[in-house]
Amino acid sequence: MERNDNAFIKESLQDANHTDVSELLEEFDAENSKFILNQLDEELCADVINDLDTEIRIKFLKIFSPEEIARYLDHLDSDDAVDILNELPAKAREEVIPHIKNEEKVKNILDLLRYDEDCAGGLMAKELIKANINWTVIQTIEEIRRQAENVQKIYSVYVVDDQDVLLGRVSLKEIILTTDTRKISNIYEEGIKSVPTYMPEEEVAALMAKYDLEAVPVLNVQGQLLGRITIDDIVDVITEQAEEERQLMSGISEDVEEDDSIWMLSRARLPWLIIGLAGGLLGARFIGIFEADIRQIAAIAFFIPLITATGGNVGIQSSTLVVQSLANPSAFDEDLFHKMIKVFQVAILNGILLAILVFVFVMIINDRDLQLSMVVSVALFSVVVIASFLGTLIPLILEKAGINPALASGPFITTANDLVGLGIYFTIIHFLYT
Amino acid sequence: MERNDNAFIKESLQDANHTDVSELLEEFDAENSKFILNQLDEELCADVINDLDTEIRIKFLKIFSPEEIARYLDHLDSDDAVDILNELPAKAREEVIPHIKNEEKVKNILDLLRYDEDCAGGLMAKELIKANINWTVIQTIEEIRRQAENVQKIYSVYVVDDQDVLLGRVSLKEIILTTDTRKISNIYEEGIKSVPTYMPEEEVAALMAKYDLEAVPVLNVQGQLLGRITIDDIVDVITEQAEEERQLMSGISEDVEEDDSIWMLSRARLPWLIIGLAGGLLGARFIGIFEADIRQIAAIAFFIPLITATGGNVGIQSSTLVVQSLANPSAFDEDLFHKMIKVFQVAILNGILLAILVFVFVMIINDRDLQLSMVVSVALFSVVVIASFLGTLIPLILEKAGINPALASGPFITTANDLVGLGIYFTIIHFLYT
Repeated sequence: MERNDNAFIKESLQDANHTDVSELLEEFDAENSKFILNQLDEELCADVINDLDTEIRIKFLKIFSPEEIARYLDHLDSDDAVDILNELPAKAREEVIPHIKNEEKVKNILDLLRYDEDCAGGLMAKELIKANINWTVIQTIEEIRRQAENVQKIYSVYVVDDQDVLLGRVSLKEIILTTDTRKISNIYEEGIKSVPTYMPEEEVAALMAKYDLEAVPVLNVQGQLLGRITIDDIVDVITEQAEEERQLMSGISEDVEEDDSIWMLSRARLPWLIIGLAGGLLGARFIGIFEADIRQIAAIAFFIPLITATGGNVGIQSSTLVVQSLANPSAFDEDLFHKMIKVFQVAILNGILLAILVFVFVMIINDRDLQLSMVVSVALFSVVVIASFLGTLIPLILEKAGINPALASGPFITTANDLVGLGIYFTIIHFLYT
Repeated sequence: MERNDNAFIKESLQDANHTDVSELLEEFDAENSKFILNQLDEELCADVINDLDTEIRIKFLKIFSPEEIARYLDHLDSDDAVDILNELPAKAREEVIPHIKNEEKVKNILDLLRYDEDCAGGLMAKELIKANINWTVIQTIEEIRRQAENVQKIYSVYVVDDQDVLLGRVSLKEIILTTDTRKISNIYEEGIKSVPTYMPEEEVAALMAKYDLEAVPVLNVQGQLLGRITIDDIVDVITEQAEEERQLMSGISEDVEEDDSIWMLSRARLPWLIIGLAGGLLGARFIGIFEADIRQIAAIAFFIPLITATGGNVGIQSSTLVVQSLANPSAFDEDLFHKMIKVFQVAILNGILLAILVFVFVMIINDRDLQLSMVVSVALFSVVVIASFLGTLIPLILEKAGINPALASGPFITTANDLVGLGIYFTIIHFLYT
């Protein structure tokens, strides 16, 4: 690039996969990337821009004029074009749209911009092949030919009636194998799965995964075919969900990656660390109430980490199982009452086993102090049961309140459990021991 | 069913989706499920059995004879048949295979059984459409017709030379739109992505997600086409990975779900709780060393939960970011040295901020005890830095040792951090304060 060797750049990148080119561009600054893109043909550029990491693309498109952006969007599917438009500032968005040349695409884009980004309507692409139920196979092939340039991946042809209401589908295999003069009505498959525009993306992902669908049609409330969602978008949804959940579980509050700046990494971690700190200081204040007890028998301080750690571990285990069952709901889920009964049974079983272990060990390490052993065991048992209860209930409450329940497996529950554990421990100690 | 109303069962289930039928059967015991399946036609039954939850299927197939199992496997794709065979005891497996009627399928199954279940060879199906480079389009359509019954979903036709070496692919769209007499060599797409049989399933999943592939061909070391992996199998791989990671992060040691038995749920949680307990008891023993210090100044016990909780939170945050970057490797990752420098910078920044906060609060709540405030702040700062360091290093070491690094975000790191935190805190207290 330093040598301005345009021909070399063009030659080496023109035949490369667009995903690889965009990965390469992420290492350059916006100016240099633009320089490289200008050497390539427009369609490849459009795919490269589409593959860029969102944050990099936002920075990158700032140095492009509305005309240039529109020229690239002209080559993309409507859903990808809308995703990119949604990232632009509102003003830039309004400036870009009138420059898109393909009128049908403009109509599709304006249509898609109405939908929420994280529901089926926001995920779908308008590009698809549909056939009227009264057509013959040859008419359908003509339609495929007409749309061939717009629709990159065709899995099947959707069959609709005169009002555009979805009736079923015909696979491309079927179209190849049947005679051209047959009616679509004789070969189409009825009763296929579809989703309404307002279905949340997590539910669309779960449905497509469950029924092994590579594409699913999206309908409005009248049952009319509006678009389709393809599996590659769903793979992204599933991956993002897992990443978001992982960050929530570990108390990272923004979407950061290892190679972000030090300040961003620090800021993403601080909120939960400060909440944890506040919990710890509250705990310190609480333990302070029992200063006289600790002065009298220092041994009660030895078991503070044991109690808080066990409470945290039990709470996270419980909430993880709830989060998991919320993510993969089964048609035959037990009701809340039976769920809680079971949680208590498991907790009591584990609580008894752990209490016995601790009783034996405290007897051994603390010179057969029977009373201390008893008190620590009883406190541990109570902590296991109450932490199980809270760990199960809190994610359910969060889910009802519309908050991602994975939050309950993070530092939130650990901090809450630390305080509850300390409360139980010192209360039992105070009344039964000192 | 109680009324033995076979006709009713048959009628209501025959047209249902196989995934729905298998979900329904999971609520019945094996005997009743078998009774229901016997009313349905064999192909539907095969799909239903294929969709059952693994554990339920293992129980369920115990009451089937080898002949019956073989009859169902005859209707499944080779990869699904092999998955089911792999679940059977070795003896049953040997008994079933000779009863499979379709000789080609037996050959394919024996071939696939050689591969490890979690690599590309173990994921692939042998069913695919391939065309010789010298064929015409009409010859290819003939091949599709011949294989139509075996290959359920066709995304594209793979193009091979006379030695079966993969050269490229032709999409079904292309085949529909081109004239029958054209040569495949004129219309096929070269340079497509493929994977070797030994590629681990996580890498296959990452590759397919990155390049938005709905199917990928699997090659042996000679470049010969052996099979293909479809995106539905990859969606399962990604979902399982997320679930496994979630369970590792939360200290659940077996693959359990909320509706498993109380004993199974209890057993899955106990190992990590006991490790946590051992850590807690070790901690108690360690704090015991400083009994005299605590007796002298009880206030040092107040901040034990603050120190252990912060160490745990920082450790989990650090390890989560490492796990994430290991899961989505970028071609331009920083080297270990620069990574660690950055980790230290972030830790020092956060450590200073938290130490200042704690200093101020301890001054306020503990009657301006300057020395205590200083000691707690210094200990907290040290814990933040060391927990960041361990949280980054441990997953990298686990990864090198071939262990899932997500383990490092679970109770393992929490327990280790508790002990390290206590060690730092009491050492600093002992030498600087009492």
